[in-house]
Amino acid sequence: MCAFVAGAGIFRTLSFSLERVRIVVFAADHGVCAEGVSAYPQSVTGQMVLNFLGGGAAINCLAQAGGIDLQVVDVGVATSLPPLENLVQRRIAPGTRNFCIEPAMTADEMLSAVHVGIEMAEQAAADGYDLLGFGEIGIGNTTPASALTAALTGLPAVAVVGRGAGADDTCLARKISVVERALALHSQSLKDPLEMLIHIGGLEIAAMTGFCLGCAANRRPVLMDGFIATCAAALAVRMHSSVQDYLFASHGSVEPGHRHLLALLGQRPLLDLEMRLGEGTGAALSMKLVQAAAVAFTRMSTFSSAGVSGRTTPGCA
Amino acid sequence: MCAFVAGAGIFRTLSFSLERVRIVVFAADHGVCAEGVSAYPQSVTGQMVLNFLGGGAAINCLAQAGGIDLQVVDVGVATSLPPLENLVQRRIAPGTRNFCIEPAMTADEMLSAVHVGIEMAEQAAADGYDLLGFGEIGIGNTTPASALTAALTGLPAVAVVGRGAGADDTCLARKISVVERALALHSQSLKDPLEMLIHIGGLEIAAMTGFCLGCAANRRPVLMDGFIATCAAALAVRMHSSVQDYLFASHGSVEPGHRHLLALLGQRPLLDLEMRLGEGTGAALSMKLVQAAAVAFTRMSTFSSAGVSGRTTPGCA
Repeated sequence: MCAFVAGAGIFRTLSFSLERVRIVVFAADHGVCAEGVSAYPQSVTGQMVLNFLGGGAAINCLAQAGGIDLQVVDVGVATSLPPLENLVQRRIAPGTRNFCIEPAMTADEMLSAVHVGIEMAEQAAADGYDLLGFGEIGIGNTTPASALTAALTGLPAVAVVGRGAGADDTCLARKISVVERALALHSQSLKDPLEMLIHIGGLEIAAMTGFCLGCAANRRPVLMDGFIATCAAALAVRMHSSVQDYLFASHGSVEPGHRHLLALLGQRPLLDLEMRLGEGTGAALSMKLVQAAAVAFTRMSTFSSAGVSGRTTPGCA
Repeated sequence: MCAFVAGAGIFRTLSFSLERVRIVVFAADHGVCAEGVSAYPQSVTGQMVLNFLGGGAAINCLAQAGGIDLQVVDVGVATSLPPLENLVQRRIAPGTRNFCIEPAMTADEMLSAVHVGIEMAEQAAADGYDLLGFGEIGIGNTTPASALTAALTGLPAVAVVGRGAGADDTCLARKISVVERALALHSQSLKDPLEMLIHIGGLEIAAMTGFCLGCAANRRPVLMDGFIATCAAALAVRMHSSVQDYLFASHGSVEPGHRHLLALLGQRPLLDLEMRLGEGTGAALSMKLVQAAAVAFTRMSTFSSAGVSGRTTPGCA
């Protein structure tokens, strides 16, 4: 229902269309992987970008099934990728630095990454897309997302850190410790979303924050993917609360931090399928629901126009 | 995940497709409306059938958005409908009789209605549809569905009767009383699903039961719509337990009886959007999810085939 009303509100007409859809996937690496927070080696980020471009990943299959245009953006993959058709190359750095030791990025890097996201939103609007979605790939990125969620919500690390792509108990304990140390180290530098991104963020997260800002500025409804995407969106809302009106939660992730972010944003996700994959897969699966709601809102007959009798007064025949 | 595995199991191959999809909507009226169990007059059933054929209803919009073929079958609408292109005319009677006084239908009528459903499933399979769905229209039909749910589960009327299409408190109390009286009147004649259909069923419910049997017999996965459709499916499973392997729950209805039926079937619905419309709308919305899962299952690369590094042993880097 909110999708119906919001669509009309965003487009300022009762006859809008959500036919043309695009999902943008932002990729980057994370220096904090040096702390051993992921079950997979960092090289997987670049390999998965190549998999996206080759059409073999889950997001490719779901985008194909949904008639969704897919755009892949390298904002900071550690592996240097060759120039590739279909890859939007905006690499700012070979990943972030280890935020257990130093800030994840410089202010310039953060702003550049935010601008990449804004650029992609503006390009999507200029290309005529009606409904957008976004997701990410970045080995280790549930750790910065958890740290940012703790900073945004004030919750302790233990409440917002999860197993990501399959951490075992030892790894989970290490992730909690890493987030606690990072929050302590940067505690004086987490006053606003830009500072948070610089100190405990990620390049793809900053880009997604920019993407949300750009979608709102260009009046495009936008589907958040899971935990990391929602974290980026929450930072954008913290910057400018009206961004909230353009955001739709696609699915509820199994990552424990996600429900806290959704509560912060006052969002209920369209799907709850116990997914935790990222890549924009949740956004892709829910896009058809939003499109279907838009078709029903804009084209359905009323009882009156269809010649159907109304309710017999009052309440019950 | 179950959709992935079930798809391969149903089609007995790893390379199945769910591209061609059809939803069948069965329409019929209910003599129990004489007891004042609905907020809408019985004439709405026929008017909504005309609305379906004119393309103006919610199910038309959602079917259009999802690329779904829609078939509308008159199994027993009270209003005599003229011969109409696109209407499958299989009217068995002008609705059921009031089951607070007498059995809803004869054994012959029940068997004819079940056969209509089987025929529609066989036709869909012959027409080359891979994935099917079904729904209904029938003013007053949450009352027989509630009575049947009570008979199937052993739960009291008060636990399974809801507000249908907008009953107020007075109407709700009347529905509960009607279901209690019907269960008492027919208590000796509810031993098996066929008897249940004869005494407290509906023509469209019997047809949907037949449709489930026909889908299973023709090895076609089938999406149940909401409360009334799931009730029909539960009757089919009671007749032959292997029908269960072909059923998928599309959404969780707000009707209280629905969750009891889903529990009985061991099903968790794909969507939970607080809908209570019927018409096959839940089946239509969830169809793309099942199709997307099938595309991911049949076409996604493995890490190995995509050249992606595996997990670093054991558990965590």
